[in-house]
Amino acid sequence: MDKYVELTTETIVDYVNSKTDFFASDAVYECEEIGDGNLNLVFRVKDTKNNTSVIIKQALPYVRVSGGDWPMDINRGAIETAVLELHYELTDGLVPKVYSFDRDMYCVIMEDLYDYTIMRTGLLEYNSYPKFADQITDYLVKTLLLTSDVVMDHKDKKELVKKYINPELCEITEQLVYTEPFRIGGRNDMEDFLVDFQKTELAEDEELSLEVAKLKFDFMNNAQALLHGDVHTGSIFVNQENTRVIDPEFAFYGPMAYDVGALVANLIMNYISTLAWLPEGEKRQNHLDYLLTATKDVVDLFAEKFLKLWDEVVTDEMAKTPGFKEWYLEDVLVNTAGVAGCEMIRRSVGFAHVKDLDSIPDDTLREKALKTNILLAKHLIKNRHEFTTGAAYQKVVKEITLD
Amino acid sequence: MDKYVELTTETIVDYVNSKTDFFASDAVYECEEIGDGNLNLVFRVKDTKNNTSVIIKQALPYVRVSGGDWPMDINRGAIETAVLELHYELTDGLVPKVYSFDRDMYCVIMEDLYDYTIMRTGLLEYNSYPKFADQITDYLVKTLLLTSDVVMDHKDKKELVKKYINPELCEITEQLVYTEPFRIGGRNDMEDFLVDFQKTELAEDEELSLEVAKLKFDFMNNAQALLHGDVHTGSIFVNQENTRVIDPEFAFYGPMAYDVGALVANLIMNYISTLAWLPEGEKRQNHLDYLLTATKDVVDLFAEKFLKLWDEVVTDEMAKTPGFKEWYLEDVLVNTAGVAGCEMIRRSVGFAHVKDLDSIPDDTLREKALKTNILLAKHLIKNRHEFTTGAAYQKVVKEITLD
Repeated sequence: MDKYVELTTETIVDYVNSKTDFFASDAVYECEEIGDGNLNLVFRVKDTKNNTSVIIKQALPYVRVSGGDWPMDINRGAIETAVLELHYELTDGLVPKVYSFDRDMYCVIMEDLYDYTIMRTGLLEYNSYPKFADQITDYLVKTLLLTSDVVMDHKDKKELVKKYINPELCEITEQLVYTEPFRIGGRNDMEDFLVDFQKTELAEDEELSLEVAKLKFDFMNNAQALLHGDVHTGSIFVNQENTRVIDPEFAFYGPMAYDVGALVANLIMNYISTLAWLPEGEKRQNHLDYLLTATKDVVDLFAEKFLKLWDEVVTDEMAKTPGFKEWYLEDVLVNTAGVAGCEMIRRSVGFAHVKDLDSIPDDTLREKALKTNILLAKHLIKNRHEFTTGAAYQKVVKEITLD
Repeated sequence: MDKYVELTTETIVDYVNSKTDFFASDAVYECEEIGDGNLNLVFRVKDTKNNTSVIIKQALPYVRVSGGDWPMDINRGAIETAVLELHYELTDGLVPKVYSFDRDMYCVIMEDLYDYTIMRTGLLEYNSYPKFADQITDYLVKTLLLTSDVVMDHKDKKELVKKYINPELCEITEQLVYTEPFRIGGRNDMEDFLVDFQKTELAEDEELSLEVAKLKFDFMNNAQALLHGDVHTGSIFVNQENTRVIDPEFAFYGPMAYDVGALVANLIMNYISTLAWLPEGEKRQNHLDYLLTATKDVVDLFAEKFLKLWDEVVTDEMAKTPGFKEWYLEDVLVNTAGVAGCEMIRRSVGFAHVKDLDSIPDDTLREKALKTNILLAKHLIKNRHEFTTGAAYQKVVKEITLD
């Protein structure tokens, strides 16, 4: 950490020009700090004359909101960049391009996705993204299957497992997704109207805790594929034509279901949010229809492409056994529903929320939305073996009402 | 590898004295190379005057029988020593004590278990070890549970996972235990009378391959506990009073079932061997009774002690959920039966055999023994969900006949 200095809008231009020759010599610079996350500084540097720009992301050695009291392994910056480079290659560009990474400053300079929108923001403005389900399932199937023992040389895979051991970031997930929401206290953060509900529906439901414990140990032990580790709609840039997945700093070797489930959960939460926010009418119906189709398509296209790619790339001799790929996929899909449930719950009562639910302006509707979200999440966790098709999700999501 | 030299009986005394002050100054030395394995040189140096001795084990950078053509990661020597030291602490001395380890020579100097017998040899002489089941289940429960996420700080556990990534040794198991015996060719090695049998009963049984594929992926992905990785009766020293487990060079973070299952398989194979070797009579009945009880006790004591220790040491908040420890144990026991089956099969038709079966002198009985062994193994793999108690094993083992 000797050479580590936090960058500022004053130092950022010199820094970029010392690391890349991205900008022309006649550049006219405009800089802003655009980070809204907890763990990093994020800058955009733009050359307004030639209309080019880059993003610079620097890992901080502590959690930003804590003012320095909650230290955080800065090596995640190196993990994030290595994963972006690997995913760029595996997915043929479904992640931003990396121009430079600097191990002294834990700082990456990368492609500015200036003509994209953060998907969560876009969905909250009731936009739809017709190519999203197809592109995100390409990303998921390729990043997951191609880093697994099904495909990789097993010794090379083990070296990647080693490289991507990510204890501090995994601990965040283990605590905030798989533990605290199902217990009293900790860093849980919920509205007053949820306090009793969380106690009776979550903390006191031992059957639920048992299922979550199984999912938690799967998360901790099942080194199946190199995950992104945080595929919510705030980690995805979209527009009408393209999809890009950012921020893989939680990456590690874990269960494939964790990535797929997080995404499904965030689509469902936007669905519930839309029900609560928008008055009945065509606009609402269109957005609900879009979300319903997107959820269904994510599950079904993932399954369909997974089986297809498997046949093209499988190398493990035993994995070629008839019936094995279907068994393997089913296990991923079952746990996907479990993960989706955990994600929906932690976004309602845990440390980190989503704008979709929190910003519903009407108190009564917000309470109904949050409770409905939690109850559906419990159903997904407890009955996860039934959720192996898009149709299964479609059925329960369609039945959601806030009446 | 610059400073690496293979030791010989000529150089070994000076080597030991350069690394330890174990021997008295008036020592009278006697040296012998006693290694019979494939991967290491093993020496005993004895001071005949003061009646003290040590064992020196040096990792070779190739597989011994190959004459140098099959290279082997020499770092396993460091893994083995680190595991011995950790296991010594966790089990209160159920492994030999390490006096010195040398990273230049990949050479460990350790306690000589001179008043012990290799268990396989002892069992082949029809000896019984009344304290074995109790002591080996202490070893298994402590080494496995205490290195798991149930107990360890999760970040510390991940550092151990990283430290013990063991690609080359795992690949041996993945190929020789979980792949080749279920396929034609490879390094399989079987007697002529097994060639057709292996083809129809193993290579062509797709239902069996499917179950083995599941077990193989569990072996590769389930980083549950720090395993020994090769707990057969040739890795165990015993006498009437004590048990010591040696040779953990296959150690890595894997499924607990792998260690328990390998042991159970080797007890069953000695049972089948005894049936074939010994004529009916009291001696045979006593040995069969001992093996039957030992097999039953290993499973039942493992389960009993596992649940008891769990309550004493569990730290993970979700792992404390009622019902979780029983679910977790059942999963270990189910896969134990699957592993036992794979081990029994690979010892019959694969690259590495066991003396118990191979040395049955009568051709007809040996053929019957090997085929019986394979069929029982298939039953264990396919019906592994039924094998969660010692009684379940006792029942099928008691029914074995070679008529």
